[in-house]
Amino acid sequence: MLTRASPLADLRIDGARLWASLMELAQIGATPKGGVRRIALTDLDAQGRDLFARWAGEAGMTVRVDPLGNMFARRAGADDALPPVGIGSHLDSQPSGGKFDGTYGVLSGLEVVRTLNDRGIRTRAPIEVCVWTNEEGSRFTPVMMGSGWWCGEFTTEAMYARADVDGVTVGEALRAIGYAGDAAPRMFGAYFEPHIEQGPVLEDADTLIGVVRGALGQRWFDVVLTGQDSHAGPTPMRLRRDAMAACAKITLEINRIANQYPDNARGTVGFVQVKPNSRNVVPGEVRMSIDLRSAEAATLDAMVADFRASAAAAAAEARCEIAIEQVVDFPPCHFAPECVEAVREAAASLGFGAMDIISGAGHDAVYVNRRAPAAMIFVPCKGGLSHNELESADPAHLAAGCDVLARAVLARAGMA
Amino acid sequence: MLTRASPLADLRIDGARLWASLMELAQIGATPKGGVRRIALTDLDAQGRDLFARWAGEAGMTVRVDPLGNMFARRAGADDALPPVGIGSHLDSQPSGGKFDGTYGVLSGLEVVRTLNDRGIRTRAPIEVCVWTNEEGSRFTPVMMGSGWWCGEFTTEAMYARADVDGVTVGEALRAIGYAGDAAPRMFGAYFEPHIEQGPVLEDADTLIGVVRGALGQRWFDVVLTGQDSHAGPTPMRLRRDAMAACAKITLEINRIANQYPDNARGTVGFVQVKPNSRNVVPGEVRMSIDLRSAEAATLDAMVADFRASAAAAAAEARCEIAIEQVVDFPPCHFAPECVEAVREAAASLGFGAMDIISGAGHDAVYVNRRAPAAMIFVPCKGGLSHNELESADPAHLAAGCDVLARAVLARAGMA
Repeated sequence: MLTRASPLADLRIDGARLWASLMELAQIGATPKGGVRRIALTDLDAQGRDLFARWAGEAGMTVRVDPLGNMFARRAGADDALPPVGIGSHLDSQPSGGKFDGTYGVLSGLEVVRTLNDRGIRTRAPIEVCVWTNEEGSRFTPVMMGSGWWCGEFTTEAMYARADVDGVTVGEALRAIGYAGDAAPRMFGAYFEPHIEQGPVLEDADTLIGVVRGALGQRWFDVVLTGQDSHAGPTPMRLRRDAMAACAKITLEINRIANQYPDNARGTVGFVQVKPNSRNVVPGEVRMSIDLRSAEAATLDAMVADFRASAAAAAAEARCEIAIEQVVDFPPCHFAPECVEAVREAAASLGFGAMDIISGAGHDAVYVNRRAPAAMIFVPCKGGLSHNELESADPAHLAAGCDVLARAVLARAGMA
Repeated sequence: MLTRASPLADLRIDGARLWASLMELAQIGATPKGGVRRIALTDLDAQGRDLFARWAGEAGMTVRVDPLGNMFARRAGADDALPPVGIGSHLDSQPSGGKFDGTYGVLSGLEVVRTLNDRGIRTRAPIEVCVWTNEEGSRFTPVMMGSGWWCGEFTTEAMYARADVDGVTVGEALRAIGYAGDAAPRMFGAYFEPHIEQGPVLEDADTLIGVVRGALGQRWFDVVLTGQDSHAGPTPMRLRRDAMAACAKITLEINRIANQYPDNARGTVGFVQVKPNSRNVVPGEVRMSIDLRSAEAATLDAMVADFRASAAAAAAEARCEIAIEQVVDFPPCHFAPECVEAVREAAASLGFGAMDIISGAGHDAVYVNRRAPAAMIFVPCKGGLSHNELESADPAHLAAGCDVLARAVLARAGMA
């Protein structure tokens, strides 16, 4: 374990080099508004992968590619038989994405290796910088395809058959860009994923480093409320079957539930479609989405039960029918304590302000953690904005997160 | 006043003839689903007007047309200098309208005249059967254009300049179909408008005749709620600015207000548009409509004040901005007591079940009532359905309403 008294107490990555690499990669698929459009398994994705592979080679690493196109750039360890310490994230972007979502994790890994090279530091365990295929899920569903496949959640056959809107399959797209490899999956001794927070918590708390303890479980539902269209004028309140009234009550119940339950509970009604959606017609149908999240499975179960009962009561009160379909069930993730602790201690050894945080969104690390000890490092992003061309992060914050990463990696990989 | 002892106690209109005329008129613009598409000032509207004018002529009436295309078919009275008793409604339809909305009022007037002719009954005051131009407002706004112009709410110049989506103006369309007349407006001694209820109240109460005492005032608003888009996962509840949460609270407040206030209070959120409307994004903007109605102006004012305060509080609670724009202000209408009483007594004299009712929607009679004593007669329509090709009414109910009309008209016109 590194401490302030360690001979590596002055170890710092090169923040300017990290920033320059981020900016160079961001040219591939750059948008006029300063964002990035580099959709999974397109030619631009291939260009990004090729650039990373070139940089990895220049840093002395060897790159393997697995059948899903996941890339593993390996720096040998003194004991090369040890399971490697992984560092990674993704290079694909949202259709109107930013410069940091995903790329920060990959290029932080590269920067750590470059720094270790500069210092002539040899680790006991090898280090592998990973690029996971199709994290965003914008072109091909499901999201986090590469890491999900890696951990055994999806089969090769099923993923190869997934098609985009033009009918092009993942298998075809991987072969077209030359990234259908044959490397067999290997286990990590530890895995770290630095990422911009994509939320407002660190900025709101004026804190530099988020020690990510886990990720919220997610349960998503489609709700259809069916009442009866009727004229807003001639129809007395007591004779209405107002689907919008039911939708409104359910929306408030979702907010009540999210505020009432513990463990970072969240609830969102993000999608609402009203029919006929005319100002003087009582709505006869509303379709709405429900998104419930919590860090603990038991809490999430209780929230879902509360939602189902509340929604049924709200629909009955408005004399509407209700149909509820669950469309996503993603269990909560608890990262490996030894990896979380390594991040916490690294931040402390650097004197950085840090706080425990739970990721609200999914990340490749969540799937990796199902098979190998993993954790994440969050740094602030401006206004919590992400999945947006205006996504922005402070170079000093990015460098600090990478410094934390370097120390956490050394703590888990050991020094020769 | 007619009583059961009156020599006209057995006066009945010809329900089969009324129905046949309704069905014949419904052929003009008939839709495959059994409805009518006869939009104002189109060739089909002209065909409907021409048919009415022919029938009026065959019944011995003379037709005048005013500058807005309103038609007045006159049956002379014994004292022809007396102000006429008007009976009317409209012949234009919604784009996907029914066979009875409007036409029932016009053809009931025609049927009353035919019945009086058959019986050789001469009234003291003349009778004028009226066709009001563009009641629906589907092609040209505002709605109830002809009767609004007649009562002085709108100028000829302003109405002639109103254009449809193709840029055709009311003035051009009136001249094109040959219905830009020059008759000067005349006052009515009384005015009656029979209409299908377009609501569920009579059917729900199993009552044949609605004695319409007035019409609800209407205040319509456009509301824009502005918060901040944010990811549903990473954004804690306390840091959200959720425009949908504000919309939901306002919707429930509108329902509370409508249920809490007296005088047939109604409140409707019929239109809701959520942005970005993605299931895992907290909505940053919602546009919604508010429709508040009540039979009394003071009540409506109080409801609006309650709405404004509640909406501001709901927006503040969700940390959203709110902008409220009033887009319609239509005061409550109280029909003339002597006309309402004539309807009530006519129903009683016929032994028909009747109940007082307030129209939830606007009608030409509401504008007429600003200048002349007016009232309406409602009959049930199936399921309260209107503005729909499936609009349906029972021939016996339509005949009963016309019987009530005949007696109310005789009561106000007097017999020679």
